[in-house]
Amino acid sequence: GAAPAIAQSAPTIKWRLTSSFPKSLDTIYGGAEVLSKRLAAMTGGKFTVQVFAAGEIAPGLQALDVTQNGTVECCHTCSYYYVGKDKTFGFGTSVPFGMNARQLNAWVYFGGGDKLLNEFYSNYNVVHFLGGNTGVQMGGWFRKEINTLADVKGVKMRIAGLGGTVFSALGMVTQQIAGSDIYPALEKGTIDAAEWVGPYDDEKLGFHKVAKNYYFPGWWEPGPGINFFINKDAWAKLPKEYQEAFQAAAYEANVTMMAEYDYKNPLALRRLIGQGVKLKKYSNEIVEAAYKAAVQLYSDESAKNPAFKKIYTDYLKNQKDMNQWFGVAELGMDQFLQQHVK
Amino acid sequence: GAAPAIAQSAPTIKWRLTSSFPKSLDTIYGGAEVLSKRLAAMTGGKFTVQVFAAGEIAPGLQALDVTQNGTVECCHTCSYYYVGKDKTFGFGTSVPFGMNARQLNAWVYFGGGDKLLNEFYSNYNVVHFLGGNTGVQMGGWFRKEINTLADVKGVKMRIAGLGGTVFSALGMVTQQIAGSDIYPALEKGTIDAAEWVGPYDDEKLGFHKVAKNYYFPGWWEPGPGINFFINKDAWAKLPKEYQEAFQAAAYEANVTMMAEYDYKNPLALRRLIGQGVKLKKYSNEIVEAAYKAAVQLYSDESAKNPAFKKIYTDYLKNQKDMNQWFGVAELGMDQFLQQHVK
Repeated sequence: GAAPAIAQSAPTIKWRLTSSFPKSLDTIYGGAEVLSKRLAAMTGGKFTVQVFAAGEIAPGLQALDVTQNGTVECCHTCSYYYVGKDKTFGFGTSVPFGMNARQLNAWVYFGGGDKLLNEFYSNYNVVHFLGGNTGVQMGGWFRKEINTLADVKGVKMRIAGLGGTVFSALGMVTQQIAGSDIYPALEKGTIDAAEWVGPYDDEKLGFHKVAKNYYFPGWWEPGPGINFFINKDAWAKLPKEYQEAFQAAAYEANVTMMAEYDYKNPLALRRLIGQGVKLKKYSNEIVEAAYKAAVQLYSDESAKNPAFKKIYTDYLKNQKDMNQWFGVAELGMDQFLQQHVK
Repeated sequence: GAAPAIAQSAPTIKWRLTSSFPKSLDTIYGGAEVLSKRLAAMTGGKFTVQVFAAGEIAPGLQALDVTQNGTVECCHTCSYYYVGKDKTFGFGTSVPFGMNARQLNAWVYFGGGDKLLNEFYSNYNVVHFLGGNTGVQMGGWFRKEINTLADVKGVKMRIAGLGGTVFSALGMVTQQIAGSDIYPALEKGTIDAAEWVGPYDDEKLGFHKVAKNYYFPGWWEPGPGINFFINKDAWAKLPKEYQEAFQAAAYEANVTMMAEYDYKNPLALRRLIGQGVKLKKYSNEIVEAAYKAAVQLYSDESAKNPAFKKIYTDYLKNQKDMNQWFGVAELGMDQFLQQHVK
């Protein structure tokens, strides 16, 4: 074809993106690279977004902060890392017993979620776009089985965000530990259990070598969205075409990360089972109690946090509508296929 | 911001896209408009893809043909409309008891499906990109209940593609009828049953006024992908940046169509139930027999069609791997949520 001319008079813009993830977690870290590569390719290298791994510019859990204050133009992170600032940050990624991956897309893109979230995020001087999803996460690695609520009490578990708050309400001793520190803690017995992501990422961290009981589902993360946050001032100054290109590339990062996990997790799960990992479903007793504790948490927070209440009300309405539909054709089909085509 | 300069020296390229869908089916037709709008916006109006509804340039079921012969540069269609040419066309959209929406993305984007499909499509002088999904479709509208295999025999049903082949094997009298002709046929009793898409699209065509029994799931379409086909010569001549932009916009069309259906179908289903529609699950007797007939169909076709066999073998392996994983965390989570958050 003709030599591309699109880039010749376009402004050169170089952005920096800080990721909350290490390069070793290639799929989730890769979402930012998908965006970066596509933007460069679409603009003939004129609009570049250089990706920095967690720790290079800022610690993984401070990606939002350095975007908010303009140190970088944007970040790739999980909104729920910031529930310590405000529990409302949960909804952009996932809350316990919340939406699955497709439902989160539907709510954000079409159900009004996008507007509500940006309204909230504007208090932090950022705009957002969805930029990936892991699907339902696994429920963690336990050195000993936990079958009853009595078994839960006193267990020391590494678990992030509101899931930790809910498990604490059931008597667990929960804590946050950075990814790289989890394995040694579990090996030494400093902790009894740890959750991370799903088979593909968990396998890399090697938890199966020191804890054989692999629980599911991760009811605190039914479809966690990964998020791009962009400094509002940087966004406003970005030429219209580059804003458009950024959005298209974010859609791509969203759908391809989910697809990549859906391709890689099955193969990793099979390898893990081959190494003696025992798959365990959380008992009804535990999940039912966790659900009650989660509903109580949402009720308590709504009573004192108007921003939380506003978004939760809309989120829950959309979730209920969608669950009714997903429980018809999708569930019936998936169940049949999983029983027959295996 | 500064006046966008990206477009000033870019080549002006005008393409035409023929859709297989009427404008009235706004969500599925809209997938091509999503692509068209994003491309124009990203390139400052320099690369435009004008969308024509079914019938304006070519009949809906000939979209591939006019792309293949270069009448238009591209189309937005369902590959399975062309199973009359070769049953291998089924895989790019959906085959009976095939992959769900997320699995199709995973296979095409990461599991090798993209390469296999393009290899097959190159015989028709086109390249492809996924450009939408409807999710599991519904199983059709029946004037009378069908509970047993005996009930199926002799029923006259409008049903497309390989699903029709499978139902025929069970003794049904199946036929293809264009969308606009289905309602009058069902009203007059020329046919006893008809399948279309799902609640949102079906409601528009009004089937609930003449047939109250709404069956699920549409086991012949567990996650049908909508496809962009592009004439290979036109694609090769397209500047690199525009190729990149096209791909990003196709990812967007894919993920947003699924999200739009997931938002709209639940509300439509609720309205339909409010109007007296009876939701019915296909009996095990019927679905098990259909599954056996489908497996036989794949076996027979594989024996005489090397292209079909090559793709089916890979597709089935990927589907089995993914079903094992989806039957763990995803299924357990969705079931619990559908029972509790409703």
